[in-house]
Amino acid sequence: MCGIVGVVGQGPVNQDIYDSLLLLQHRGQDSTGIATAETSGVFHLFKAKGQVREAFRTRDMRALLGNIGLGHVRYATKGTASSEEEAQPFYVNAPYGIVLVHNGNLTNTRELTQELFSKDRRHLNTSSDTELLVNVLANELQSSISGLELDPAQVFQAVTRVHERVEGSYATIALIAGYGLLAFRDPFGIRPLILGTRPAVDAEGNATGRYEWIVASESLVLENGGFEVVRDVEPGEAVFIDVEGRLHTQQCATNPQLVPCSFEYVYLARPDSIMNGISVYEARLRMGERLADTIAKYTPAGTIDVVMPIPDSSRPAAMQVARKLGIEYREGFYKNRYVGRTFIMPGQAVRKKSVRQKLNAMSSEFRGKNVLLIDDSIVRGTTSKEIIQMARDAGAKSVTFASAAPPVRFPHVYGINMPSRHELVAHGRTIPEIAEELGADYMVYQEIDDLKAAILEGAPDVEDLDMSCFDGRYITGTVSEEYLAWVEGTQES
Amino acid sequence: MCGIVGVVGQGPVNQDIYDSLLLLQHRGQDSTGIATAETSGVFHLFKAKGQVREAFRTRDMRALLGNIGLGHVRYATKGTASSEEEAQPFYVNAPYGIVLVHNGNLTNTRELTQELFSKDRRHLNTSSDTELLVNVLANELQSSISGLELDPAQVFQAVTRVHERVEGSYATIALIAGYGLLAFRDPFGIRPLILGTRPAVDAEGNATGRYEWIVASESLVLENGGFEVVRDVEPGEAVFIDVEGRLHTQQCATNPQLVPCSFEYVYLARPDSIMNGISVYEARLRMGERLADTIAKYTPAGTIDVVMPIPDSSRPAAMQVARKLGIEYREGFYKNRYVGRTFIMPGQAVRKKSVRQKLNAMSSEFRGKNVLLIDDSIVRGTTSKEIIQMARDAGAKSVTFASAAPPVRFPHVYGINMPSRHELVAHGRTIPEIAEELGADYMVYQEIDDLKAAILEGAPDVEDLDMSCFDGRYITGTVSEEYLAWVEGTQES
Amino acid sequence: MCGIVGVVGQGPVNQDIYDSLLLLQHRGQDSTGIATAETSGVFHLFKAKGQVREAFRTRDMRALLGNIGLGHVRYATKGTASSEEEAQPFYVNAPYGIVLVHNGNLTNTRELTQELFSKDRRHLNTSSDTELLVNVLANELQSSISGLELDPAQVFQAVTRVHERVEGSYATIALIAGYGLLAFRDPFGIRPLILGTRPAVDAEGNATGRYEWIVASESLVLENGGFEVVRDVEPGEAVFIDVEGRLHTQQCATNPQLVPCSFEYVYLARPDSIMNGISVYEARLRMGERLADTIAKYTPAGTIDVVMPIPDSSRPAAMQVARKLGIEYREGFYKNRYVGRTFIMPGQAVRKKSVRQKLNAMSSEFRGKNVLLIDDSIVRGTTSKEIIQMARDAGAKSVTFASAAPPVRFPHVYGINMPSRHELVAHGRTIPEIAEELGADYMVYQEIDDLKAAILEGAPDVEDLDMSCFDGRYITGTVSEEYLAWVEGTQES
Amino acid sequence: MCGIVGVVGQGPVNQDIYDSLLLLQHRGQDSTGIATAETSGVFHLFKAKGQVREAFRTRDMRALLGNIGLGHVRYATKGTASSEEEAQPFYVNAPYGIVLVHNGNLTNTRELTQELFSKDRRHLNTSSDTELLVNVLANELQSSISGLELDPAQVFQAVTRVHERVEGSYATIALIAGYGLLAFRDPFGIRPLILGTRPAVDAEGNATGRYEWIVASESLVLENGGFEVVRDVEPGEAVFIDVEGRLHTQQCATNPQLVPCSFEYVYLARPDSIMNGISVYEARLRMGERLADTIAKYTPAGTIDVVMPIPDSSRPAAMQVARKLGIEYREGFYKNRYVGRTFIMPGQAVRKKSVRQKLNAMSSEFRGKNVLLIDDSIVRGTTSKEIIQMARDAGAKSVTFASAAPPVRFPHVYGINMPSRHELVAHGRTIPEIAEELGADYMVYQEIDDLKAAILEGAPDVEDLDMSCFDGRYITGTVSEEYLAWVEGTQES
Repeated sequence: MCGIVGVVGQGPVNQDIYDSLLLLQHRGQDSTGIATAETSGVFHLFKAKGQVREAFRTRDMRALLGNIGLGHVRYATKGTASSEEEAQPFYVNAPYGIVLVHNGNLTNTRELTQELFSKDRRHLNTSSDTELLVNVLANELQSSISGLELDPAQVFQAVTRVHERVEGSYATIALIAGYGLLAFRDPFGIRPLILGTRPAVDAEGNATGRYEWIVASESLVLENGGFEVVRDVEPGEAVFIDVEGRLHTQQCATNPQLVPCSFEYVYLARPDSIMNGISVYEARLRMGERLADTIAKYTPAGTIDVVMPIPDSSRPAAMQVARKLGIEYREGFYKNRYVGRTFIMPGQAVRKKSVRQKLNAMSSEFRGKNVLLIDDSIVRGTTSKEIIQMARDAGAKSVTFASAAPPVRFPHVYGINMPSRHELVAHGRTIPEIAEELGADYMVYQEIDDLKAAILEGAPDVEDLDMSCFDGRYITGTVSEEYLAWVEGTQES
Repeated sequence: MCGIVGVVGQGPVNQDIYDSLLLLQHRGQDSTGIATAETSGVFHLFKAKGQVREAFRTRDMRALLGNIGLGHVRYATKGTASSEEEAQPFYVNAPYGIVLVHNGNLTNTRELTQELFSKDRRHLNTSSDTELLVNVLANELQSSISGLELDPAQVFQAVTRVHERVEGSYATIALIAGYGLLAFRDPFGIRPLILGTRPAVDAEGNATGRYEWIVASESLVLENGGFEVVRDVEPGEAVFIDVEGRLHTQQCATNPQLVPCSFEYVYLARPDSIMNGISVYEARLRMGERLADTIAKYTPAGTIDVVMPIPDSSRPAAMQVARKLGIEYREGFYKNRYVGRTFIMPGQAVRKKSVRQKLNAMSSEFRGKNVLLIDDSIVRGTTSKEIIQMARDAGAKSVTFASAAPPVRFPHVYGINMPSRHELVAHGRTIPEIAEELGADYMVYQEIDDLKAAILEGAPDVEDLDMSCFDGRYITGTVSEEYLAWVEGTQES
Repeated sequence: MCGIVGVVGQGPVNQDIYDSLLLLQHRGQDSTGIATAETSGVFHLFKAKGQVREAFRTRDMRALLGNIGLGHVRYATKGTASSEEEAQPFYVNAPYGIVLVHNGNLTNTRELTQELFSKDRRHLNTSSDTELLVNVLANELQSSISGLELDPAQVFQAVTRVHERVEGSYATIALIAGYGLLAFRDPFGIRPLILGTRPAVDAEGNATGRYEWIVASESLVLENGGFEVVRDVEPGEAVFIDVEGRLHTQQCATNPQLVPCSFEYVYLARPDSIMNGISVYEARLRMGERLADTIAKYTPAGTIDVVMPIPDSSRPAAMQVARKLGIEYREGFYKNRYVGRTFIMPGQAVRKKSVRQKLNAMSSEFRGKNVLLIDDSIVRGTTSKEIIQMARDAGAKSVTFASAAPPVRFPHVYGINMPSRHELVAHGRTIPEIAEELGADYMVYQEIDDLKAAILEGAPDVEDLDMSCFDGRYITGTVSEEYLAWVEGTQES
Repeated sequence: MCGIVGVVGQGPVNQDIYDSLLLLQHRGQDSTGIATAETSGVFHLFKAKGQVREAFRTRDMRALLGNIGLGHVRYATKGTASSEEEAQPFYVNAPYGIVLVHNGNLTNTRELTQELFSKDRRHLNTSSDTELLVNVLANELQSSISGLELDPAQVFQAVTRVHERVEGSYATIALIAGYGLLAFRDPFGIRPLILGTRPAVDAEGNATGRYEWIVASESLVLENGGFEVVRDVEPGEAVFIDVEGRLHTQQCATNPQLVPCSFEYVYLARPDSIMNGISVYEARLRMGERLADTIAKYTPAGTIDVVMPIPDSSRPAAMQVARKLGIEYREGFYKNRYVGRTFIMPGQAVRKKSVRQKLNAMSSEFRGKNVLLIDDSIVRGTTSKEIIQMARDAGAKSVTFASAAPPVRFPHVYGINMPSRHELVAHGRTIPEIAEELGADYMVYQEIDDLKAAILEGAPDVEDLDMSCFDGRYITGTVSEEYLAWVEGTQES
């Protein structure tokens, strides 16, 4: 769960990348980084822990010179979230000098690590799969070079080899010093990547006849920066924009097939993004409509007085549920925007972090009512449990809890940080058992087919979705029972 | 527009005050400060610019020792917002040692400043009216002392004298070294202040039989901190909690009368607060209902396809408008939560700050539609103008703009930072002229009586409201035409 | 052991004060602070822990507006050195607004604290005697005011009262808002204070006919800032420079008598200062000459091959010893200018801080030689012991250790941080016993009379010196056996 | 002009490296960095601008895990001093992972840069010659690998190739991930490098029977850290200490010849170091003795009253001059240890930085005297000019200025930052012309042969010295007139 952006401009790109990262901040807040390249090929790189707003000072920004660059916001999927050394972008200096950012997760890291050390004698200084990826790319670029100059065909040949060596999900952007910006998406297009362009203007604001390019995780970045959407980068496709601003594209995978991650629509993406042609906001509205039907099926009429969202992401679904069921809609929870820290005084014990720091329940809205709470999804269930308790403490007569997504019963290995199976509340439990565990009077979950339909309705030409955390079907080959056990072991150690 | 809190505990209060300030952060983000007092009477004080989360480091918090304390978040109403020297709390060391925080604005500052210098020989180091207030209080305490010890009667006598000398709005909390915590509210109760209590517990969580007390700007602070609401502090009333935790209260004004600020309900307070017995959230729902009637009156049926709020504060009103008018409700604007900075590169011009950094318009929701936008209020109109343009750029066929508050035609002198009259878009303009100025197809404003009714419906025993920025009627005597001209002159210099 | 400076300029004084504090940095490195006053009487104050260079950032300096100001560097004499709250200057806001800095130590603090609370109802927030001093001064100023305006006579009357109430050592500088800069020295002139002036120049560097004034702890500050020395402030005298730049002076003590601290000449002051008319550098040369005679008396001829200073302050004395004894002079110790920290890794024990971090012994200079080491003075003896061991480790055949000051056998209560009596290595020990304790082959100490003579030779009109830590004779009345016991108890708790 | 250190320990080495860098701080204060390696081969790297004490925070130090590491302090010889990107160590990740630090300056950088790009396709991101060096080493290591494992013979083969490709001065330390620490010195041994060892001890301080190793720029680092000197690394020699702590050494140059830099003895090194067997302190004493003879030759007897050093580095020479000439020695200048900044207030002009911020002249020592000032060397002459003026302002009757080094007439290209020729005061001037330019009554310079003799006397087996900045004779081939012009052009642009 990360956000990436790359820009090829006709002037300095540092502010454009910074602004884009702010817009992608919801995709990761553990660390952030920007790299830019000057025409001479000199890179400038700055990365730091924390949010964009806190990470970059004026002097850091001023050092990020150059008309081409990329950026990253990180939500740690593995390794320690706090490790500054795993912040992106990653840099290797041979061949050419490459910096790279990556959203996704590789699933054959053990094999790759072994190969790179013994065959390619490349040093990996972290356990980041992004460092793996940049080294594989570097190695394949080195192999594909024939003459003195690097041409797009050689770049695409290297990406083709990367697709062959690497498994998992990867939306990737890289700068090749002196040559240009390369972006590519794994052969299943699991993670999003979209291409945009705008006419370049001079200092007076007049069009120069040249074009500037952007690739980013979400379309709203394009919209906000004044770029027009060209199209989503296709699964397996590579896009290369050279330093002159010329666009080259090529399909580099043998059997590309679009299977985007359903969780982007459920929770991860911003509602104002359009991803693979599907409006996230409208997909969420449709999830609400379908969820309403399921609720109606399982919940006796008249047992609910009021529908409430758990802010912010379930609001569209909740509103549609209320509307379709003809029940009053109220916002009984208020989200605290300003969250601080708990300071441990010498001699004091650590106070338990509670969801109450993040949400406030207005008792006037709960008192004596049968409430239906709508959340976008339920993973561990610990937050849901606390929320249900808060509703009861605020005076609710009964609490029905509904999830706009189906039960999460399997790990998500394609770049969303999810716990091992036995920590998932729905793992090995029936729905009534979950209700009991969470303390709800009733539980309703979206049906798997309904979620799929709610998303795909938006774009008739998308045929499949990655629903692995709901149905346990993993499209990339190496995700075996053994792999899942290994991942879970790594996380717990 | 500030937020204040004071706590008398049976253990360290720094974390309670910090948590409270986070919950009041929406009331001011320019600076913040906390003061605590140890039993010995020693004060600890820390204040800094910016938000609570950024201002306090672990070492700052650890230095804030003591079981009694207060805090402040500041939104500059006059003076330069950035002045660290005007951050609260303010401290004077004679008599006793007093630290004080204040939400509101004094309107007889010129006279007071003169008096304090010539009569009381007290040095004012800033132009803050809070420094004035603490010095007036100090002076009156000095005068009211008879014997060796300070008793509650003497404290109340001093507050009575403060009410006589000072005019304007002031919800105030002060610590008197070695004695206790004092809180009082101006005789019209313009700014809010509420009192709460909770049983003290020992380290094992068992009740000790003693009580802890809180006074704060908003009730949600009490709710979140596990305090039960005792009641709003009454207009003119003083509350004194001594170091033993005993509560003393007294009415110190001659003709107290509750005339709370209507703007708290319109925009300023958090929706999950109950203020003077009125739920802010429900007041906003009622504003929506009444606004719907006015819209229906002035807008031909069928001319609106969709209702949209300007997030976040107008959401309840917008939802009720949609519901009552039977029109579809959509969230076409998405609020960017992560706002950063614009870095000026050497040789670059400053980029204009735009509302587009804060809001994103989803074109899929606007394209080809007649939209009705609802905002809570309109002051300068510059933001509204940009928003209307964004809606058009996103493809809206027509834009109707409605305000849940009446036209703002007069300055707000009681603690909300409002520009001088000629900067108010509604000053000297009819509603059609405003529509033209803002670029809307139609404009609808709430009626003054409707706003008043929408708020007061919630609490039959509140009889009056400060509506001065809508109707120009100022309850405190010194607000004359000359005063307004002076304030406007001060701000512009 | 602190350094103070005050400047009355015809333009901004912040840089002058900053530069002066850097030159006084050797007098205290625990904290530092600057206060300035604008013509309007508004004070600006900044103080922080650590050295001047690290404490003041550009924005802090830019906020220090005004043509009159003062500054302080602090070496904690009591209380916790690290307490930011005890950093100077101190501010009180009534009457007038006063900020004050102080070098010295009051010896009747217990009585004063009691009086201020019960009689004057003034709050003391720290245990700093400087906070006491500013409150006494404030109180006496309040009492001496008769009409509306403050005139120099009233100021001098207040200082006269301060001399009556306060005991101990105090070189003091204060700003009185709107009136001017006041400086005064205790009736024995224990701590130094010197007055200087320079012609004011305009932006083009032309003399304006007006004068700028400075008061500071040491003369080198004047020399370096282009000020001409007027004279030392006399014991008991007060100097008042009003905001117009007019100088007023008056003797405010009944029986003033100059008894300056001998330790300034031994160790504390910079060699390039002239204090009470005596060149510190030359006093140190004379100490060396007299010490040479004592060494010659107690040390058999031919037993010393080489003379070495412990850098830096004993260098002049050592050089004269070598010269007079006709023995080779070598610098066998090198002082490490860059001293860092010892980082404790999790699980590691704290490494003992050693003098080896500060000094390096060149074995080539020690091997096989009988060395005579010269230090300025010996207090606890722990450093001397380590140095003697270093000399032996570097190969010295024998080590004679000589101190340019007599044995320190009594506490220094006038502003130099010295341990309680039983921690002084010379307390209750004969010289041979000290030699044994420190591991020296021979010890030689300066004779008390020789030290006195060496210093006083420089200025025939100075008649007495405070030698209390050598001879136990305290000139201020309140320093009793009981007082010493109390001070020692306070420090140890 | 940089300082380097590398340590192979049996426990964490971060504190040892930090302490060593503090002791080498005089060799460079522009930036500093430390890299360590864990047994797994993982590197930890931290570098920052400024001095060691300010650069490393606790958390930075704690992250520097591993039993093997190296460090650097930098004084910029070319490029912009402030560039954080040019701070050392430098890292490349293929082959193996290498980090490297370097003291010196390469003179065939243009050729190397071209080769690396076109032949080796390695990206250079800065203009640092250290980045060049690590890439050349990396490339040669890659070429010399035959089997799977890296053995010392292959490492030495790579160093042999580096000596063939690279020209200039380079004392170098590198870590090879998973293998060990490599150190080597250029074939002329221009810059210093010394090897030391100490027995490893366990947590209780008992010897474990294993050894720890250090290589560093100066011997005092060894002495201070408890290491015994093994010997200077020989010119052209490579030292490789593997991760097991085994030492391997080999001469890797064809015609090694020791020609150390004379400027180390004149000014650069600490007096308590022994370099190439010569004590720096004693060399300086001998410079003073020989300089005395030259002074006596050119200066009429009786024309000098007092000899004074310009502190600190000329003190030993000055003392010997005074002694040999039988003239009184005085320290008339005091060096300000605490140097701060000049803050530019809005609207103010920049004040000229003056030597007066660094030195104070005691007028009591100068007044009416004929003074002989001794400095270690004169480069631009601007400081000398100001010092002479200060002496006159302080009242000197006449000023004779003597330099313990001969006139600097040629650029220093081997790692000391010196200006282009036309900025050297001695370039194209006779000694009387220099005296006139600097404002001295008389000038005396050390003779070239005397300087050489003074240094070489200390070690009969050292036969030659690099004296190029005095005599224009450059030992490495590529330093031509064209090269010097190019260097000077680069610096000025």
